[in-house]
Amino acid sequence: MMTRDELVQRGEAVRQQLQHGAYGSTGTAVNASVPGVSHLTKEAVFGAVWGRPGLDMRSRMICTLAILSVLQRLSQLRTYIHSALTLGLEAREIQEIIIQSAIYGGFPTMVNSLVRLSFHLELI
Amino acid sequence: MMTRDELVQRGEAVRQQLQHGAYGSTGTAVNASVPGVSHLTKEAVFGAVWGRPGLDMRSRMICTLAILSVLQRLSQLRTYIHSALTLGLEAREIQEIIIQSAIYGGFPTMVNSLVRLSFHLELI
Amino acid sequence: MMTRDELVQRGEAVRQQLQHGAYGSTGTAVNASVPGVSHLTKEAVFGAVWGRPGLDMRSRMICTLAILSVLQRLSQLRTYIHSALTLGLEAREIQEIIIQSAIYGGFPTMVNSLVRLSFHLELI
Amino acid sequence: MMTRDELVQRGEAVRQQLQHGAYGSTGTAVNASVPGVSHLTKEAVFGAVWGRPGLDMRSRMICTLAILSVLQRLSQLRTYIHSALTLGLEAREIQEIIIQSAIYGGFPTMVNSLVRLSFHLELI
Amino acid sequence: MMTRDELVQRGEAVRQQLQHGAYGSTGTAVNASVPGVSHLTKEAVFGAVWGRPGLDMRSRMICTLAILSVLQRLSQLRTYIHSALTLGLEAREIQEIIIQSAIYGGFPTMVNSLVRLSFHLELI
Amino acid sequence: MMTRDELVQRGEAVRQQLQHGAYGSTGTAVNASVPGVSHLTKEAVFGAVWGRPGLDMRSRMICTLAILSVLQRLSQLRTYIHSALTLGLEAREIQEIIIQSAIYGGFPTMVNSLVRLSFHLELI
Repeated sequence: MMTRDELVQRGEAVRQQLQHGAYGSTGTAVNASVPGVSHLTKEAVFGAVWGRPGLDMRSRMICTLAILSVLQRLSQLRTYIHSALTLGLEAREIQEIIIQSAIYGGFPTMVNSLVRLSFHLELI
Repeated sequence: MMTRDELVQRGEAVRQQLQHGAYGSTGTAVNASVPGVSHLTKEAVFGAVWGRPGLDMRSRMICTLAILSVLQRLSQLRTYIHSALTLGLEAREIQEIIIQSAIYGGFPTMVNSLVRLSFHLELI
Repeated sequence: MMTRDELVQRGEAVRQQLQHGAYGSTGTAVNASVPGVSHLTKEAVFGAVWGRPGLDMRSRMICTLAILSVLQRLSQLRTYIHSALTLGLEAREIQEIIIQSAIYGGFPTMVNSLVRLSFHLELI
Repeated sequence: MMTRDELVQRGEAVRQQLQHGAYGSTGTAVNASVPGVSHLTKEAVFGAVWGRPGLDMRSRMICTLAILSVLQRLSQLRTYIHSALTLGLEAREIQEIIIQSAIYGGFPTMVNSLVRLSFHLELI
Repeated sequence: MMTRDELVQRGEAVRQQLQHGAYGSTGTAVNASVPGVSHLTKEAVFGAVWGRPGLDMRSRMICTLAILSVLQRLSQLRTYIHSALTLGLEAREIQEIIIQSAIYGGFPTMVNSLVRLSFHLELI
Repeated sequence: MMTRDELVQRGEAVRQQLQHGAYGSTGTAVNASVPGVSHLTKEAVFGAVWGRPGLDMRSRMICTLAILSVLQRLSQLRTYIHSALTLGLEAREIQEIIIQSAIYGGFPTMVNSLVRLSFHLELI
């Protein structure tokens, strides 16, 4: 089993690969102001889950974009759109992920999420 | 542009490919009792969205499983687990889709969804 | 202004009109076991809100059915379907309220809610 | 059965009747930037559901406002408030729809939705 | 049993104790523009529930902060953070309430809520 | 900093203190069937969050019960009601936590949650 330091390092490596945090620094500022949160995120979110075997990174990203869209976590959606493009997903695919999600979470989630995506892509 | 009949046929073809409805007939019974619902589902859900270009079927399925898990639509999750396996996703991948979703929708959604999956796979 | 007793009486009158609680007695049993809950419900829910002027009872019922469907409060949906029929809404209208809601809350909510309705109407 | 073109035309007619899109053009801009979305919305949302028989337009609007309020789709709520007034609902009724919804979706949804409505009506 | 006036007075007393409304006047403006809403809130929310026996004020506040965080009612969260500090909860405790909630409602709710808290505390 | 083994041990100690898992073994069975899930839960949920300093266990439990009630994770609510009683919360307090939550998440969540609690306490 990995040591805890190795787990945090794996989490940090995942974050680097996604260029996560390069876009939008509010989360980073918050993490710095609350004891242990930056560490918790690297360890639990990126190390212990994103870094698990059994599912490729592209598929994990599709899960994440779909969920952020239906739950309307729009600030996080913006961050992960950036990461998804970094990972090699095409803008056209991200549009379709959002449209597919509309059936299961309602059409208003689609409109709001496509607005964020279109701003990011400078289409509008 | 496709005619409406062709759209419904495309929807029906998608449903056939997924063997959707082979497992659990309640939805089918309901559709039969409400005027136009069966047609609406084939046309709007499977024809007009699932049948769109721009994203492969595997990716559309990953979106769907992730959303059904975080929104806890457990009856639909069961149906789509069957369809996902038909489509060629591995049980191990479906487990990881559910675990990945826990970070964004909370751990209780993971436990409930894994229970459904494990029953389906006869692991428990 | 009404006295508090009059408010509770108005709430009780609304509940009688809806024949609320005639169907499914679990809620009633719970209310009896927790101090003041039965009173709170009559006063706040049925007296202070359902009994307000400015919107007719049919419209308040449509709001309620739509919300219970999209939030998937299926036990309450069953109770209010009974009340809606008592109030004079037609089964066909309730089907359409549920279908209309699917656009904004996702199609799985529609299927689950129509199943409840169809059982209640003994269509399936 | 209607042809697909007729369905889209029916959807467009519903949108015209509601003066939907007259207020707030972001959705329109997005629709233009994503292939087929404008068509999907007219066909599936306004043609295939809003245009169904079995429930009058006023009742469909009440469903929609109630759901947008409890799910806090506030951007869409603003658009539909405009459409509801166009359709003949009174401001006083829309207030009560939002208040009625608070019981089932929580009081914070009421406050946020009433704020949007009050801004629209220029009451605050 | 209290009279209705006494109930409203108890509700007003709770609001005073929490210095609720001292921070952010939008809700107050809305309440003034909709008949009976200010009264409803004092009576039902603060009088009939917050004023109930059986649970101390600190515990009721913890419930409230946790729920507002997971449901992402961020405007209300800001108001109640002010009230929680007034009531004697420490900033450090509020941080932990938000972090604890992340497990059950997802990590994005934590980030957004901590951002609000950090702005309020002028940490960022 | 704790090692990873120590973190898992702290998580296991928290679970023991709560007698978590003593009631209802479905989750345990699932955990055993999915690689690494049991470990993830102990490490991330109970070790890295429940075991954090800055907030007492009683307050963490109140957060948890309130959230499980408003999100209607009723299977988990049942498990944590058991843990809350183990930790020393009184049944009367748990009733009030659920009632308090109704204001912010809607009254139907209260009824369903009180039903679970009343069954557990053998009041109904």
